[in-house]
Amino acid sequence: MKPLGPIPAGFTAIDGVLAVGGKPVTTWVEQAGDTPLFLYEAERVRARVADLRAAMPGRLALHYAVKANPFMPLLSLMDGLVDGFDIASGGELEIVRGAGIDLSRVSFAGPGKRDRELEAAIRAGVTLNLESEAEARRAIAIGDELSLTPRLALRVNPDFDLKGSGMKMGGGAKPFGIDAERVPELVRHIVASGAEWRGFHIFAGSQALDAEAIAETQGQALDLAARLALQSGAPLPHCNLGGGLGIPYFPGDKPVDLTLVGERLAARLENLPDVLQETAFCIELGRYLVGESGVYLARVIDRKESHGEVFLITDGGLHHQLAASGNFGTVVRRNYPSAIATRFDAPVEEEASIVGCLCTPLDKLADKGGFPRAEAGDLIAVFCAGAYGASASPANFLAQGPAVEMLV
Amino acid sequence: MKPLGPIPAGFTAIDGVLAVGGKPVTTWVEQAGDTPLFLYEAERVRARVADLRAAMPGRLALHYAVKANPFMPLLSLMDGLVDGFDIASGGELEIVRGAGIDLSRVSFAGPGKRDRELEAAIRAGVTLNLESEAEARRAIAIGDELSLTPRLALRVNPDFDLKGSGMKMGGGAKPFGIDAERVPELVRHIVASGAEWRGFHIFAGSQALDAEAIAETQGQALDLAARLALQSGAPLPHCNLGGGLGIPYFPGDKPVDLTLVGERLAARLENLPDVLQETAFCIELGRYLVGESGVYLARVIDRKESHGEVFLITDGGLHHQLAASGNFGTVVRRNYPSAIATRFDAPVEEEASIVGCLCTPLDKLADKGGFPRAEAGDLIAVFCAGAYGASASPANFLAQGPAVEMLV
Repeated sequence: MKPLGPIPAGFTAIDGVLAVGGKPVTTWVEQAGDTPLFLYEAERVRARVADLRAAMPGRLALHYAVKANPFMPLLSLMDGLVDGFDIASGGELEIVRGAGIDLSRVSFAGPGKRDRELEAAIRAGVTLNLESEAEARRAIAIGDELSLTPRLALRVNPDFDLKGSGMKMGGGAKPFGIDAERVPELVRHIVASGAEWRGFHIFAGSQALDAEAIAETQGQALDLAARLALQSGAPLPHCNLGGGLGIPYFPGDKPVDLTLVGERLAARLENLPDVLQETAFCIELGRYLVGESGVYLARVIDRKESHGEVFLITDGGLHHQLAASGNFGTVVRRNYPSAIATRFDAPVEEEASIVGCLCTPLDKLADKGGFPRAEAGDLIAVFCAGAYGASASPANFLAQGPAVEMLV
Repeated sequence: MKPLGPIPAGFTAIDGVLAVGGKPVTTWVEQAGDTPLFLYEAERVRARVADLRAAMPGRLALHYAVKANPFMPLLSLMDGLVDGFDIASGGELEIVRGAGIDLSRVSFAGPGKRDRELEAAIRAGVTLNLESEAEARRAIAIGDELSLTPRLALRVNPDFDLKGSGMKMGGGAKPFGIDAERVPELVRHIVASGAEWRGFHIFAGSQALDAEAIAETQGQALDLAARLALQSGAPLPHCNLGGGLGIPYFPGDKPVDLTLVGERLAARLENLPDVLQETAFCIELGRYLVGESGVYLARVIDRKESHGEVFLITDGGLHHQLAASGNFGTVVRRNYPSAIATRFDAPVEEEASIVGCLCTPLDKLADKGGFPRAEAGDLIAVFCAGAYGASASPANFLAQGPAVEMLV
């Protein structure tokens, strides 16, 4: 048997069935009318934000990275919980606009912004996190053409990375941001252009579980911000310290020690150099806020034995859960947390693999895990499905189409 | 510099610009009105089918696996070129229906067919490639309910695999098909049920370049079909020998020696055992028919240097080209064939990485390749984009949306 990832704390059964949002998932499936189904638990999102607010210094604002999950009802929930939003495309700008979010609280990062996306952002009063000198020139020119004052920040390519992070966004040559040594000159140019100078965006990595490494990186980001602000000769109105906080997906993963991160950051913010005294700070989180709130449900269509191995063949698959299938950013496939949702409190009885309905051996949701014996008609659950699931998977592969999504 | 995959033979420049379908790609981009853009070259598809027909024995029918590329105009083109179609979902059934394809020429394989998909297929006269005993029972029961005679074939899980294949579909425990030793009993059950018995589907692997291995596997499939037909005691009307023929994607890859495969198969088909004398044979190909016909075009939005490395940042990315980015079924990332389309006959001048517009380090289309110097506004091309591109990528990631597709 291969180990499964850890199921997030607090999930229980009602009459043997996994409960989400206070009801057995069978109730939600009935209401949705079909499987596969993504459930996002609102209470879990609220609790996560509350835990963060409690652990982090009061001065630190909290932003949501829309790319983690752009489901509209989730954005509306988030609107009452966080202080700002980060978007990564013109398409996401239209999504946050549609959710009724105050666009002055939105910033836009992304290495390949088209002119039409820059224009839409400037018209909407969105802050642009500029990724290059050329993009800065284009944004200033578009502002001039429109007779609008663009709100401009710089994404800095830091000269350090976040140790142990699943995705390194800094340290060495990168397509993201502007190398630190070229930042001061560009800040002066932006200020001189008459644009509204908004500050720095420093993102060193994501999906890290090591609190010491996260705290160290946040300290490095503060040092870098101070140094660049001094060299620029302009006050720093705002500094986005990036994200980095990960969630446990795999066997052995432990949650981030939030208290440690919060205490270290509080100590740093209480001892800021003069140049950062007036700066507003935020962190920008996606996965950490919503990832564990999500449960992906699929129905077992067939229970099959082949050469002594059991396969639970479901109506779901990698077209909704690309990362869980091990095909997105992972080198060695490991099991996400999963379970038989309709036998959630039953003991392990057998080794089985949970697969999707696609005609490809890549379509595996759990490889040789230990489960209670399941039959056709049972529901399976994949946990940690709230971030980079529905929107980051090839929904139209084999003409399967998207899954239903519900905030409960 | 890292090597790039081999550009398929025959692509040339017109006035320095890559030509597809007899015109510079800039013409097609203008006509499409936007980038990114997938171009599928009809003439290349016709030539590939003609080459196959010439090399393969006349008795062998040729089927197209819709999942490789379900773009409607391409299906319509294919309708005049091949003898049958294989689909993998109820969604693909609606696509081939929409393309006006004769549904009696269609077969449906896939491990997790829902009851409603079985019903739609039976109503349409589509042949079902059954994947388990339970699926056979469901199909027969649905036929009874509808008072329709289902057309039933069995997908056999062969006891061998295709050596050197990119995707192994047989050999050992698999979610696909029915283990060979259980096939004869199920055939007798199907025949006794009054269903129309259609034969076997034997698929051992895909994306192999070694002609010897392909020929050996086809021989093993014929041996297995003969043995199972004898044991079943029923004549074998049809046998789908699977696919397996790959295309060169990576540095060092060589095209399949089609002549060798054709000669070996012809020799086998001329010396069939009695039990297979009346059997109709086909092979089912997807990628091999359309993969090399496709070119993915994106525009350079930014040319960026970071710590001495050059990044060409485009408006395309892994949301259209997941496999090319190295995130779909590959363990070690290697470069697909790519080029600067608007400087197609220019010499290599520098090392550059071509990246997409997504905010993730996974979004890389070419890693440190050798290219002519490109600037913002240039078009880049990724080749071998005709199969498992548009439909097998997470088009809605970061709300980017799908690329335009054109058959030219």
